[in-house]
Amino acid sequence: MNVKKRITDSFNKQAFMNTIGAELISIESGVVKIACKYDRKITQQHGYIHAGAITTLADTACGYAALTMMEEGMNVLSVEFKTTLMRPAKCEKIIATARVIKAGRRLTFTEAVVTDEKEEIELAKMSATMICVGK
Amino acid sequence: MNVKKRITDSFNKQAFMNTIGAELISIESGVVKIACKYDRKITQQHGYIHAGAITTLADTACGYAALTMMEEGMNVLSVEFKTTLMRPAKCEKIIATARVIKAGRRLTFTEAVVTDEKEEIELAKMSATMICVGK
Amino acid sequence: MNVKKRITDSFNKQAFMNTIGAELISIESGVVKIACKYDRKITQQHGYIHAGAITTLADTACGYAALTMMEEGMNVLSVEFKTTLMRPAKCEKIIATARVIKAGRRLTFTEAVVTDEKEEIELAKMSATMICVGK
Amino acid sequence: MNVKKRITDSFNKQAFMNTIGAELISIESGVVKIACKYDRKITQQHGYIHAGAITTLADTACGYAALTMMEEGMNVLSVEFKTTLMRPAKCEKIIATARVIKAGRRLTFTEAVVTDEKEEIELAKMSATMICVGK
Repeated sequence: MNVKKRITDSFNKQAFMNTIGAELISIESGVVKIACKYDRKITQQHGYIHAGAITTLADTACGYAALTMMEEGMNVLSVEFKTTLMRPAKCEKIIATARVIKAGRRLTFTEAVVTDEKEEIELAKMSATMICVGK
Repeated sequence: MNVKKRITDSFNKQAFMNTIGAELISIESGVVKIACKYDRKITQQHGYIHAGAITTLADTACGYAALTMMEEGMNVLSVEFKTTLMRPAKCEKIIATARVIKAGRRLTFTEAVVTDEKEEIELAKMSATMICVGK
Repeated sequence: MNVKKRITDSFNKQAFMNTIGAELISIESGVVKIACKYDRKITQQHGYIHAGAITTLADTACGYAALTMMEEGMNVLSVEFKTTLMRPAKCEKIIATARVIKAGRRLTFTEAVVTDEKEEIELAKMSATMICVGK
Repeated sequence: MNVKKRITDSFNKQAFMNTIGAELISIESGVVKIACKYDRKITQQHGYIHAGAITTLADTACGYAALTMMEEGMNVLSVEFKTTLMRPAKCEKIIATARVIKAGRRLTFTEAVVTDEKEEIELAKMSATMICVGK
């Protein structure tokens, strides 16, 4: 089973992705994009998209970016991540683009940037460590 | 308006809190607890509570813990946070307990621990920086 | 060889510890303390102890705290750490106290607090991930 | 006084820079490079450059990158930073290149990458928050 199919199947099993309205945009070796439309249900008290929803999107993209570099049959878990919140998010759609910055046998380091729908304005950045686990 | 009322009102305006099923447990000076029942809608592909949902809960608790130390009329925004994921979360309920570790005029440093419903097993920890902003 | 001897030997091989004037204070299971006297050579432009020196002390204490929980013959490497700088450090001595918050077979999560010489004022906190590696 | 002169003067006042053998390589608007030769005095127990020395270099570069975007007379302090350690550092020289990713009136977000002397191998990355303070 190729990696795109594996990631798509896994993504579809993540109920929280459906809850926040996330959709897989693209999967390439070491780079994964996930987007999410602005919806009142993911906002905080000022009407901005909640930092937790932004983090959810970025973390998921980082995990799958790491998974593109792992052998079939392996799974990925988040070890830790840091989210930097650069600007309030009130745009039509947010897009998380995650990249592998160092793939290891056990640990893979990733980074993500979360932007507006035009990928012009950086709203947040993530630095995340992922671990490869057996099935 | 006292701080409990301010935080409760603000919490109720956060649509994302309702989406994930979060509830405010307690508000004391410098310490806020928020909980969330296990529900399929906040899970990832293995049936664990999504790291993003855990982070959402912890970030919100940290923000309100910081707000308890700020003057009336002020608001709080997350600057950055780091989440450390210690154990997979598959329990009846998760509870985020956030504490202020240093309150400043502009920046307030906070920490949170996310546990199971008995507050016995530590599932995740957060270190977060909050900023005080005018209304 | 017991863990105290292993850590003391390792500490003495760290030339950077000597450079910054660090000394091992205590080694217990899961808890290690390292201190460092105020010295102009570790200061930044305002005469405070450099955030990098504070981090060096905390990282080293976290690494050894993790090592106390590992089997003989194993070594520890830092995966990542976050330092939160709460107050400027201008005191006679700084003490980093590191604790293991979750020991795993491969990854160990640790935290450290850096205080003044009386262990009363918290100057900085660290959240660090350590990895266990073979000799 | 222009920003290059201000940063050079400040750098020369940082005794810890001299202690670790750091030198300012370049200062441009939003980008600062600092390097450090391999020397036994900055190593840990395996002969690699200590994660604390790498962090010291990256933090200092991030602070000065932020300072290039601030008005004259202002100073910069580190609020928090996360260092990700990608590879052991055993090369002739390490170079920290820091960039501003979002400059604000009070807070400035920065990132740094630490490489070998050819700027080919990424050894570590930093994500750092800086605060602007009056003189």
